[in-house]
This record gives sequence, C-alpha cells and structure tokens, in this order.
Amino acid sequence: MAISMILPVLISFAVSAVSGPVVIRRMTALKASNTERKEGVQSHLKKAGTPTMGGIMILAGILVTCVIYIALGDTKILPVLVLTAGFGAIGLIDDYLKVAKHNSDGLLPWQKLLLQFAVTFIFWLLLDHAGVSLMMRVPFTGGKMCDIGYFAVPFLFIVVLATVNGVNFTDGIDGLAGTVTIVTASFFLISSSLIRAGIEPAAGAVIGALMGFLIYNAFPAKIFMGDTGSLALGGFVAGAAYMLQMPLYILIVGFIYALELVSVVLQVTYFKATHGKRIFKMTPIHHHFELCGWSETRIVAIFSIITGIAALLAMIRL
Amino acid sequence: MAISMILPVLISFAVSAVSGPVVIRRMTALKASNTERKEGVQSHLKKAGTPTMGGIMILAGILVTCVIYIALGDTKILPVLVLTAGFGAIGLIDDYLKVAKHNSDGLLPWQKLLLQFAVTFIFWLLLDHAGVSLMMRVPFTGGKMCDIGYFAVPFLFIVVLATVNGVNFTDGIDGLAGTVTIVTASFFLISSSLIRAGIEPAAGAVIGALMGFLIYNAFPAKIFMGDTGSLALGGFVAGAAYMLQMPLYILIVGFIYALELVSVVLQVTYFKATHGKRIFKMTPIHHHFELCGWSETRIVAIFSIITGIAALLAMIRL
Repeated sequence: MAISMILPVLISFAVSAVSGPVVIRRMTALKASNTERKEGVQSHLKKAGTPTMGGIMILAGILVTCVIYIALGDTKILPVLVLTAGFGAIGLIDDYLKVAKHNSDGLLPWQKLLLQFAVTFIFWLLLDHAGVSLMMRVPFTGGKMCDIGYFAVPFLFIVVLATVNGVNFTDGIDGLAGTVTIVTASFFLISSSLIRAGIEPAAGAVIGALMGFLIYNAFPAKIFMGDTGSLALGGFVAGAAYMLQMPLYILIVGFIYALELVSVVLQVTYFKATHGKRIFKMTPIHHHFELCGWSETRIVAIFSIITGIAALLAMIRL
Repeated sequence: MAISMILPVLISFAVSAVSGPVVIRRMTALKASNTERKEGVQSHLKKAGTPTMGGIMILAGILVTCVIYIALGDTKILPVLVLTAGFGAIGLIDDYLKVAKHNSDGLLPWQKLLLQFAVTFIFWLLLDHAGVSLMMRVPFTGGKMCDIGYFAVPFLFIVVLATVNGVNFTDGIDGLAGTVTIVTASFFLISSSLIRAGIEPAAGAVIGALMGFLIYNAFPAKIFMGDTGSLALGGFVAGAAYMLQMPLYILIVGFIYALELVSVVLQVTYFKATHGKRIFKMTPIHHHFELCGWSETRIVAIFSIITGIAALLAMIRL
C-alpha cells in the first residue's frame, strides 16, 4: 500500500488528537460555549455549555499535514487546501464573533457571502493555474466526460456554495458531520488513487483529522466543530470533487449533505407559500428524525451507512 | 474500482438489512431476550429484554453473498466461509440452548471446545486442499515469509481459538464488535486486493452484513448479535488472516480483540493468584472503561479509531 495514503492519515490524526485537550480547555475558558436554541429539540438543552470551535483541531491536522506534503513537493494539493482552509477561516471568524465575542449576529449575511465568493474565486484561479479542466466525469460511464462550456464557471460557484452549506447543515448532531465526512473523504482518497489525481495526502489528512476529532466529538460530545469545522469540511468536499473532475459525484457520495440542504430549502419555501405549514417536524432533516424518536447515535449510524453505500455505488465504473 | 469489491457489500447489506425486522420480531417472540447479569454495569440493566441472536442477520448476508460467488466460480472463498459459518453455527446452537430453551448452561465447555476444534480441523483441511501455505507474512517487511515448520499446525489452532474468543469478548457494548470488525474486514478486503488472494467477496460480504446489522445494533441497540454473530465474525477474522497468510497481522489489526482477551486472562489469573484482588474494575476491558465513566458510544468510537490506526500501520510495507 502506498505510504502516501497511510502517512498523512497518521500525521493528521496525531496533530488533531493531541490538540484536543488544549482546544477544549481554551474554548471552554473563552466561554466559546454553544447556546442551544430554546425552541429546538428538547434533549439538546443539556448540550448547553459544550464548547464549540473544535474545527480548530480539524484545521490544525489538515494544515500541518498538507504543508509538510507541499514542502516535500506535493503541490497538487494546494487548490483543495486553499478552499478547505479558506472556508475554515470564514467559519472561524464567524464562530469567534458569535461565541467568543458574544456577538450573536456573527458575520452579516452579505459579508459571509462576499468572503465565500472571494475564496471560491481564488480556488477557481488555482484550479485553472494547475491545469485542471472544468469538464466533469459522468457517473457510471467508466470515465466519460461532459462539457457544459462557459456555464461550467457559474456552476462551480453554485456547487461549492451548495456543498459547503450542505455540510454546514449536516453538522447538528454529535459525530454526524465528522463520521459522514470520513466516509466521503475515504471515497475521494480511493478515487484519487484510482485516477491518479494526486490529492491522496489532502484526503488522508481530512480522514486523520476527523478520527482525532471524533475521539472528543462522538456522542456525548465534549466539543462541537462549529462553522470552523463544517465550512472547512465543505470546502474540502467541493475542492476534492473539482480536483478529481467529479463535482457530479457530490450528489451521490454527498447524498446526506444534499438531503440536509434540500430539506431546509423545501421547508422554508413551503412555510412561506402556505403561511405557516411545515413539511418536516424540523429541519435540517436530522432534527426531523430526532423528533420522530430516533436517537442521535442511530441517526449517525444510519446516515453514515447510507453514505457508505452511496460511495460504493459511486465507485461502480469510476 | 473492481466490481468484485463493491457488489458483495451491496448484496450482503441488502440481505442483512431486509432480514432485520423479521429476525427482531422472531427473536422477541421466541423470548430470545438477553438477561443482563445483575452484578454487571448498572446502566446495562435497562438492556434486559433486548432480543439477541441478531448474528442470524449477519450470517444470512454472508451466506447468501458467498454462495452466489462460489456458484459463479469464486471457490477460493470456501475455506473462510466454512470457518465463518461453522463458528456461527456453534454460536447459534449455544445461543438457542441458552435463551430460546431457557437452558442457561448452553453447550457444556467440552462440547463447545470439541465443536470448535472440529470446525478448525475442517478449515485446516480445506486450506491445505486449496494449496494455501501455512508460512506467514512478517509485518513491515514488504512480504517476507517466515516458516515455523510443523509448529504451524498447532499454532493455527491456537490462533483460530484465541481470535474467536477475542472477538466474542469484544461483543458486549452496543455496536462495538460490529464497528470494529467492519474496519478489520476492510483491512482484509484491501489486503486481499493488493496481494491478489481473491477473498474480496467474503470480506465484502462481512462489511455489508455488518452495515445492515448496525442499522439495528447501533446504540441504543434493538438487537444483539449474540454468540451466533461474534463467533462467526471471529471465524471470519481468523479465516481471512490464514487465507492471506497473515495470521501475525491479527495482533496488529485485531489489537482490540487481543486486548479484550488478554484483559480477561490477566484478570482471572491475578484474581486466583491473589485470592480476590482485581487489576481491572471489570473485564472484558470495555466494561472497565464503562465503570471509569466512559459512555458506550465513546468506547465504540475510540476502539474503532484505534482499529483504524492499527489497520493503517499494518498496511505499511504490506
């Protein structure tokens, strides 16, 4: 087995796992604790006081590992690292304003959107500079490409922003976004190895960082990832998909992210159209299942198993 | 990606997942419910009434998948299937006597040992018939073999029985044995593909069966696997390791199984030698951590992460 698929996982895991106690102590001290909404799922009220911004652990693992590999000459991973770290930084600023500064607004919507567009724009430039085409592999065709011409550019912005927000919505239950994204990152690791795209160190770094993070984030969580983590992971998923020319695969392997995003959009649209009716008991949809009586741990297990099955399906005739 | 690595997982998952509700209903009706020991971990008392013998789901998935692949000509997987199904059958008889028949003794120790020896003996004959040597790959050497001569035969019996009992001890917390063994089976799937040993369909079948089972067995479990499941999984781990000439790797990737087994042996030995003193609060060792205040779900997460790291280490210079 290629050492480039193993070592990044181990390095990133070590950094993330070791940084855990420090991050938990500092975030608790900073009073960076999560405030559960009172109208939310009742069983979540006991989570008040759990520190957030644990995404710092994830970012630390990814950054240290990727910087080592870039220094050693693996410059191919730069675009996906920039998208991951860029969105992580936006999440970090937002989390910091919201919780550490007790400014519950965080970044204003237009500020957030502008930053997200700026980071995506830089990613697009780097992708172009690295010579990665915007033509996309069509699933189940054995590598056939499709070309959507100039529409590929706005499509990239749509895919990146939708993915990042989907992953962001998936984060809301102990261990959920982390476990689902370990499976997604494993899919990208294997895909990168199969099609020789060279981003194995970045995918391995995400897997390792999440393994380290889940030591503390598995139910019952001692720390949440916050937007710092979920935006970074969203950036990684979209970035890895584009590096592999596989944005269309996000709809398969990222089925859970898409489901979470669509549930919110449907709920809000329907609520407005009907002046107050709801499709789901609560969205993002994992809260709907919680209110149906599923335990948090069952939701994590089932959503992860669905992602695993989806990843296997996506690998057919890759 | 080779379809022989994907399709078995999907078939086995479907069989196991679909059989779940039927098995749960039948086992509940048979009063095949688990009786938690009163002196055990207090929080486990609420588990009384949860049906067991869920290993039937796991066996169903593995058997259906492997029989299809053997019928299609993949006869290489026969030895590992026999060891898996043979130990599964021993567990099934034992579980049935214990719970369905309310005969709390189950099989007598000598009956159990005799059956285990008999199944292992048949496996040894099949291994020999298939032309698989008892020489063993030495970890981290890039495939160097070691030959322990005639001692290899008694060693095989020791390894199989120790592994099966180690996996059996690991089963004692919702989702623990299943999640850890998904990681172990993934290691054997990748290893089989790398060294072209041809047992990918069997390893895939175990992964899929466990994904289906975990839908119902994840905390809070609706069904336990029982000895039906844990002995079958132990048979698979030992069988796959021997098919790949990798029994020495069980100590790495099966670190958790070994730890559970050793904790019990140490505890019992020390207890007898000191006339009543204990090393651990309770064994198998996962109960020690529970009594130290770890939640079941945290133990599952950490033991699985340890297995994942161990599997990666074992893949170095495979």
